[in-house]
Amino acid sequence: MTYCVGILLASGMVMLSDSRTNAGVDHINTFRKMSRFERPGERCLVLMTAGNLAITQAVVSVLREAECAGDGRTSLLTAENMFEAARHVGDTLRAVYARDAESLSAFGIDFNASLILGGQIAGDPPRLFSIYAAGNFIEATRETPYFQIGESKYGKPILDRVLRWDTSLDEAAKCALISMDSTIRSNLSVGLPLDLVTMEANVLALRSQVLVDADNAYFSMVRNRWGSALRDAFDAIPNPDVGLS
Amino acid sequence: MTYCVGILLASGMVMLSDSRTNAGVDHINTFRKMSRFERPGERCLVLMTAGNLAITQAVVSVLREAECAGDGRTSLLTAENMFEAARHVGDTLRAVYARDAESLSAFGIDFNASLILGGQIAGDPPRLFSIYAAGNFIEATRETPYFQIGESKYGKPILDRVLRWDTSLDEAAKCALISMDSTIRSNLSVGLPLDLVTMEANVLALRSQVLVDADNAYFSMVRNRWGSALRDAFDAIPNPDVGLS
Repeated sequence: MTYCVGILLASGMVMLSDSRTNAGVDHINTFRKMSRFERPGERCLVLMTAGNLAITQAVVSVLREAECAGDGRTSLLTAENMFEAARHVGDTLRAVYARDAESLSAFGIDFNASLILGGQIAGDPPRLFSIYAAGNFIEATRETPYFQIGESKYGKPILDRVLRWDTSLDEAAKCALISMDSTIRSNLSVGLPLDLVTMEANVLALRSQVLVDADNAYFSMVRNRWGSALRDAFDAIPNPDVGLS
Repeated sequence: MTYCVGILLASGMVMLSDSRTNAGVDHINTFRKMSRFERPGERCLVLMTAGNLAITQAVVSVLREAECAGDGRTSLLTAENMFEAARHVGDTLRAVYARDAESLSAFGIDFNASLILGGQIAGDPPRLFSIYAAGNFIEATRETPYFQIGESKYGKPILDRVLRWDTSLDEAAKCALISMDSTIRSNLSVGLPLDLVTMEANVLALRSQVLVDADNAYFSMVRNRWGSALRDAFDAIPNPDVGLS
């Protein structure tokens, strides 16, 4: 499994991914799910992937090939805007589907992939997309400023309660880490290390990129304090009377 | 969808169920998911159901028939202990499967049902079972003192953080209501009213039973205060530095 969350804010973007993959509980590995496509000052794109690892790695490899080809084909480094970039990722997913889906189907394996693409290209505002296995996609808006892929449910309540369009990048990063902590605690197939990046709007380069592992002091602090803060919040609410009147 | 949680504690048991069913988003109804089988002072059993409503209603109807038959057949009112009661519910589920599964399958409908049975019969301690569609079941223990059925993920983190074997009945009821609140906020197909019962160990009767609707003052208070307490807990954790060192 996997858990990734991408958050679009007035002030920029936060992307967080875990790095655990599993094919059964006895086959667990670490693969990072985040890829960056950058020309600092001109564009900064981040792609996160969930689903069948062979499919999502193939998508990223084909995207990298297009990026390096330099033969005028569309790539994430030549797309004119984020919509075109999302379409390019969708088309790439469809090309992988065309090549692999039938063979997977023969083994009873679904073509299972979901992606989050976020970033900014000069001339376009920061934009965030959730791309489905069929290559179609939706875009985040002020009202729905985040997307999750993978094991999304455990970590959704805190996002719903905290994230607003005007939330700051740092607060959103904290919120994403708490959401990830809830997910890691409840699902063994989501695990460290984490990739966390933040982007400020209109800077066209990453603001920060951190690999969060078990030794990360900030994440350890968040984990400890959030657990005890939740417990305190719980204790502060009176118990019901028997009749719950 | 549905969300039900059953909690076994040193001091007794808490059971909470919602009442929303849906067959598509344009076909939403209210059906209560909790059934009680009682002989005060001798036994007190509570059954909660999730899954295909036609299946789970059939199971409850057959259990009620056996209860009323009084012909010496096993029923939840004659089972000698909770293990036998859980087996009887599993057998009933298998009887419904034998009658209906093939016809459902012709329409592409899975035989989808999951149940929680909790209670106490004189001579046996309070016991809590999670019963699967196949009629097999597992039993809660000190280490894993609760079971959920239906839409379980949104409401699981608070249960994991709060519930212990020595948690009081009132605290566990509060925890169940917060877990339900998180679920209702994140999944439209889980909704009010709620059925909440508590049982004290060795009393062999319900301690409390409440129908929690939108006017319930305690649940409204919990919803409001939990939201703001979470927000305060979130604010109390420092934001990360850019480098997350």
